[in-house]
Amino acid sequence: MSQSFAKKTFKSIKGKAQKALHRSLDQHVKLAVTGLSGSGKTAFITALVKHLTTQADDKNLPFFDVMREHRHVATKVVPQEALKVPTFNYTRALSSLLPSDGMPTWPASTERINTLRLAIKYQSNAGLRGHFSPQSTLYLDIIDYPGEWLLDLPMLEQSYSQWCEQQYPLLTQPSRVNTSSDFLAAVEQLDLNAPVDENALAHIAQLYQSMLVGLKKDTKLAMLQPGRMLMPGDLQGAPLLLFFPVSGEINSDDVVAGSNLAHLIKRFNAYIKEVVKPFYNEHFRHFDRQIVLVDVLSALNEGHETLQEQSSVINQLLAHFNYGESGFFKRLFKPNIDKILFAANKSDHISAKHHKDLALLLDSLVHEQSNHLKFDGVQIETMAMSSITATQPRQITDKGQTLDCIYGKPLNEPDWLTYLPPQPPKRMLNKSEWPAQGFEFLSFSPMPSPDKQLKHIRLDHVMQYLLGDKLT
Amino acid sequence: MSQSFAKKTFKSIKGKAQKALHRSLDQHVKLAVTGLSGSGKTAFITALVKHLTTQADDKNLPFFDVMREHRHVATKVVPQEALKVPTFNYTRALSSLLPSDGMPTWPASTERINTLRLAIKYQSNAGLRGHFSPQSTLYLDIIDYPGEWLLDLPMLEQSYSQWCEQQYPLLTQPSRVNTSSDFLAAVEQLDLNAPVDENALAHIAQLYQSMLVGLKKDTKLAMLQPGRMLMPGDLQGAPLLLFFPVSGEINSDDVVAGSNLAHLIKRFNAYIKEVVKPFYNEHFRHFDRQIVLVDVLSALNEGHETLQEQSSVINQLLAHFNYGESGFFKRLFKPNIDKILFAANKSDHISAKHHKDLALLLDSLVHEQSNHLKFDGVQIETMAMSSITATQPRQITDKGQTLDCIYGKPLNEPDWLTYLPPQPPKRMLNKSEWPAQGFEFLSFSPMPSPDKQLKHIRLDHVMQYLLGDKLT
Repeated sequence: MSQSFAKKTFKSIKGKAQKALHRSLDQHVKLAVTGLSGSGKTAFITALVKHLTTQADDKNLPFFDVMREHRHVATKVVPQEALKVPTFNYTRALSSLLPSDGMPTWPASTERINTLRLAIKYQSNAGLRGHFSPQSTLYLDIIDYPGEWLLDLPMLEQSYSQWCEQQYPLLTQPSRVNTSSDFLAAVEQLDLNAPVDENALAHIAQLYQSMLVGLKKDTKLAMLQPGRMLMPGDLQGAPLLLFFPVSGEINSDDVVAGSNLAHLIKRFNAYIKEVVKPFYNEHFRHFDRQIVLVDVLSALNEGHETLQEQSSVINQLLAHFNYGESGFFKRLFKPNIDKILFAANKSDHISAKHHKDLALLLDSLVHEQSNHLKFDGVQIETMAMSSITATQPRQITDKGQTLDCIYGKPLNEPDWLTYLPPQPPKRMLNKSEWPAQGFEFLSFSPMPSPDKQLKHIRLDHVMQYLLGDKLT
Repeated sequence: MSQSFAKKTFKSIKGKAQKALHRSLDQHVKLAVTGLSGSGKTAFITALVKHLTTQADDKNLPFFDVMREHRHVATKVVPQEALKVPTFNYTRALSSLLPSDGMPTWPASTERINTLRLAIKYQSNAGLRGHFSPQSTLYLDIIDYPGEWLLDLPMLEQSYSQWCEQQYPLLTQPSRVNTSSDFLAAVEQLDLNAPVDENALAHIAQLYQSMLVGLKKDTKLAMLQPGRMLMPGDLQGAPLLLFFPVSGEINSDDVVAGSNLAHLIKRFNAYIKEVVKPFYNEHFRHFDRQIVLVDVLSALNEGHETLQEQSSVINQLLAHFNYGESGFFKRLFKPNIDKILFAANKSDHISAKHHKDLALLLDSLVHEQSNHLKFDGVQIETMAMSSITATQPRQITDKGQTLDCIYGKPLNEPDWLTYLPPQPPKRMLNKSEWPAQGFEFLSFSPMPSPDKQLKHIRLDHVMQYLLGDKLT
């Protein structure tokens, strides 16, 4: 009896151990997908899901180890844990890219946070894992959120006065002054020390909001704060969104109680406390990996100032990941992010031989201050890629010269076109180096696909960088 | 020196006492304004603000003591404390009721929570208060929220299974079956024990949502749950809003893990925990007074079943206020509400001599179970009133008989009309007592007002009931 008992116990322990091991093998990764609006977040997620589900093979994704090694079993969408966060609408996005009839269109951009969970079942490749548990599952939570929310990050460390010092001068710059003039005129009329006039504050805040929306639409400038003003959702009309920067020095000791200024400060602080912090607390601190999609080509189209500002914003964000264990951001949110990928999307919009230039350019934007940056255990990578290729390469011979063109249907135009795109610069240019004629990269409609397959450029590299080590 | 010190101290103490007393005299009242959509919440709040600010006098508000006694000094809108809650847009509402040119229209109904703070400065009427502090201020926070949210209250006490038992049979009733048939057909095809099919659940949830929206629009039925499905805001597309009732008995022990049923239960529970409870925690528990606006006339127009359902819903809600100190609701939220007013709005749409009938009818709806109800220190009152009168009384003599008619411009019709409205019943009618031809009360556009004044019926009584004791 004691033998049998020992045997049972041993069996039970072995069972438990295997179960525990198995549990630890079912890994979870939270991937944050972000980028300014128009950078292709929705297309990226749609492509990621499509290639992991119905297009998952080694021919399609040769640089994704789990595919090349034929260890991928199957991937499917499974119910998400975060029931309060809207689900990424994969079906809708896919049907606009692969419609049953008619021309494909880019999926509508989402302006809210949303999520999708994938279960990736795979064969472990060796050793202990392979021995005990031939199949493991990686649960991948994809969290898509507006890049504008990320740009509120630096505000966490600022007082209202510091924020004004940074933001107000921006509004008088040549790139903004056309759009900002109404706001500037109104804010100059405001007596900061007068008793609060809620209607006046609401009116000026509305001008400020229109200005931000206008700048986002027309200039692709990146430094637009507060980010929620661009997509307020349920907060539309709430006082904490009705603030704006003012000019001049603010001495916090001199603020008159109940004045316009006192209320602007109160609202700024409430925005930080009730909107920005909760977002980072509820979501950001749980992210494991982050991809930041950057539409470098559109920024090049807009000109030197826009590209410069994108670079400066990215570097500001990087600086926040970089404060070390004792830094403000780390102390506040204890983020888990160990890998960040900056991806120059839409590389199919240039010639294949210039993809490398695009990657180098993005690298120079991100690493502008690389000497000053040291990332505590966070890996940073840059790539040029295309989630969904909208063009085909075409070689044209012109006067004995071979030109690497692309063929596609420019957005909002009726006819297909073979076109020689400009070469992007390999690094950030000075203002004096900027070509007088500027850059003009076209935008393209998605390619029709009779076989219902999406095509990509280097999405497999992206997958390998972001997920490869979790699928070994 | 010691004398002077004593003198100073005495002065200082006196100063402090006066200050402390003054502080305690500046009272705060949080008034919750609710009612099903279309019941006139926006019009009520607009009228309340208008009559307290630019129309505040004893002739206009004779039954509001503070006005009759000429103790009202001034009322103004002041900044609200809750910066995350959208501000009630008084300016917009007023300008649709009193446009600078063109015909007035009813203000757009708000579908979210919103708030407005008034500071009511008044003269205390007697005694200690009058002596020390000739002027006091009552801060009135008006919180306007969709009545549909209130209707989720009973769900707090239900399991998913209990909720289904109550809701599913409703959907097969004659009043609903036309609108619910698509949903019912789809839900019958769902295999509850099959592994979760998120697309199927989302599809059926969408049918359920369309059905609720349709019922709200076409039938004015009151029992529509979950309330947030009717106005999801930022929660649109979140799994916790993608649930619906199913038929048959649910034994919680038999629920298959990972099944469709398991996920419906999970979502129902998440809805209660993450949407309903937080609303009551953040807002409801802080309310002091509540007015529930009821559009009794529209319910009469819809017929016996709708009126019956409104009555049953109101009684369900009352029952929740009635559970005593040890009751579920009291334990959970510790509400402070000490006065509730049920107001039959739009009484200007019937003849003045029938206003009393309307009040009696509402009273019979509310007090249907009055023998069973005992309110722990909560006062309940019913009134017939009109926040903004849209008609004028007209006496017409027809064949020697004097008829009490009303004169106004029916909604969506070009011509003005003198019209004899039907008499509302004095109490809830049985189905057999219901007149064969039903009831037909007209709806009217707001009256143009060249002098920019709003007119009301018994709004002063409402103010006195809700605020009179705080302004003594």
